Amino acid sequence: MAASDLTIGFDADDTLWHNEVIFERTHERYRALLASYHDAATVDRVLFATEMRNLELYGYGIKGFTLSSIETAIEITAGRISAEEISQIIKLGQEMLAHPVELLDGVVETLLALAPHYRLVLITKGDLRDQERKLAKSGLAGHFNQIEIVSEKDAGSYQRLFARHAIDVRKFLMVGNSLKSDILPVLDLGGAGVHIPYHITWAAEHATAPTSFPGRLFILQRMSELPAIVRQWAQSESR
Amino acid sequence: MAASDLTIGFDADDTLWHNEVIFERTHERYRALLASYHDAATVDRVLFATEMRNLELYGYGIKGFTLSSIETAIEITAGRISAEEISQIIKLGQEMLAHPVELLDGVVETLLALAPHYRLVLITKGDLRDQERKLAKSGLAGHFNQIEIVSEKDAGSYQRLFARHAIDVRKFLMVGNSLKSDILPVLDLGGAGVHIPYHITWAAEHATAPTSFPGRLFILQRMSELPAIVRQWAQSESR
Repeated sequence: MAASDLTIGFDADDTLWHNEVIFERTHERYRALLASYHDAATVDRVLFATEMRNLELYGYGIKGFTLSSIETAIEITAGRISAEEISQIIKLGQEMLAHPVELLDGVVETLLALAPHYRLVLITKGDLRDQERKLAKSGLAGHFNQIEIVSEKDAGSYQRLFARHAIDVRKFLMVGNSLKSDILPVLDLGGAGVHIPYHITWAAEHATAPTSFPGRLFILQRMSELPAIVRQWAQSESR
Repeated sequence: MAASDLTIGFDADDTLWHNEVIFERTHERYRALLASYHDAATVDRVLFATEMRNLELYGYGIKGFTLSSIETAIEITAGRISAEEISQIIKLGQEMLAHPVELLDGVVETLLALAPHYRLVLITKGDLRDQERKLAKSGLAGHFNQIEIVSEKDAGSYQRLFARHAIDVRKFLMVGNSLKSDILPVLDLGGAGVHIPYHITWAAEHATAPTSFPGRLFILQRMSELPAIVRQWAQSESR
C-alpha cells in the first residue's frame, strides 16, 4: 500500500498544544474565589455536575465552562456570591480565551516529518471560534491537508468525516490524548489509533483502555515517537 | 450552462428559520429585569457595546450573548445586581438554546422545488453546537448537499468554501437576510445574491444596500419567490 493512501488524523487540545493545564489553573483560581463558602472538593463536584447537566445545551468549550462556573457559584453560595465575584469568573473565562497557545514538545518536527508522506487531517472538537483562534496562534494550520472542527467525536462524526474526505478507515490512523474521543470510536470503526496520554485528563474524557487491537492500537509517551510507529503501521499487513 | 453546474447557498438564521425574534423577546425580558436600574435605551446601548467589545473573543451565538448580558448587568448596576437576577439571565440564555425552531413560510416548498436541479449548500455562521441543534430540529438537513458552519462570513471564508467544494463563484448564488454577511461578500467575489430581508436586523449586521450589480443582485419579499428568480439567473448571460 502506497504511503500516500494513508491518512493520519490529529487531535489538537492536549495532543498538539496544552489545554487541560489552562483549565486546571483556572479551576484553582475558581476554588480560591469560593474558598470562604466551600472546600475545594465540594466546588469541584458541583461544578462537574453542572457542566454535565449543561453539556447537551452548551457543548464543549470555554464559554459553556464559564456559564456553568457562574451557575455553580450562585448555587453553592445560595445566592450570597457578589456581583464583583461573578465578574471575576467572567474575567477568568476571558483570560482563558486570550491565553497563548503552547505547543507540546516535538509537535512541529513530527508534523514536518510526516507531511511529505501522508495526508494529515486535524480533527478537533469544541467551540468553533476558540478552536480557530488556537489553530491560528499555533502556526500549525499549514501542515494539514484538512481541518475539521466538530461538536462531538463519536463513531457517527468520524463516519461523516470519512465520507466527506473519501477516507478508507482501514487506511486511517488517529493520534490523540483521549481514549474516549480519539481512539475508541476509530478502533470500533476499523481504523488504527495512537494514544499519547496527557498528564491531566478531564473527568468527562475518562475511559477504560481497550486491550485487544493487535497492530491497530499503539500507546506512546511522547509525540516524537510517532513517525517510527506510523512507518510500522504503514508497512504492516494488519489492515 | 447546465442547471446542475449551479450552486445555491442558503443562510439559515432568519432566512430558513426565525432567530432574531427570539433574541428580541429575550432582550425585552432582559430590559424588564434591569428596569429598576436603567431605562431600556441605556440597557440596549451598553449591552451592544459589550457585545461588540467581546465579539472577537466570544464570536457569534447565544453563549457569548449570555456572558455579555451578565457582564453588562453587573456594569450598569455598579455591582448591585443580585445573584438571583444573574441566575435569571443564565436561564434566559438556556431557554434560547432550548427554543423550538420555527421555519419561515415557504421554505420547505422552495427547497423541494430547487433540490432536484441545483446543488444546495447551507452556509451558516455562529456557534457550532447551537447551529447543529437548530439544523437537526428544523428537519431540513436532507435537502442540502453540503452543510457548512463557519465562525464568520466574509470574502475569505466564502473563498475557502468555494475551494473546498470546487465551486465556481460565477455559478454561485447566495440567498440570505443579511446584506453584510450573505450578499456583499459574494457579490464582491463575482457571484450572485438574493437578499430576502427579515423584519428585524441585529445592529451588527446593518449594511448599506449595494446599487449596481445588474443581473447579480435580486431583492425578494419572501422565500416562495425564489424559484422563479433562480430560473431567471440560471438562464441569464450575465455570469
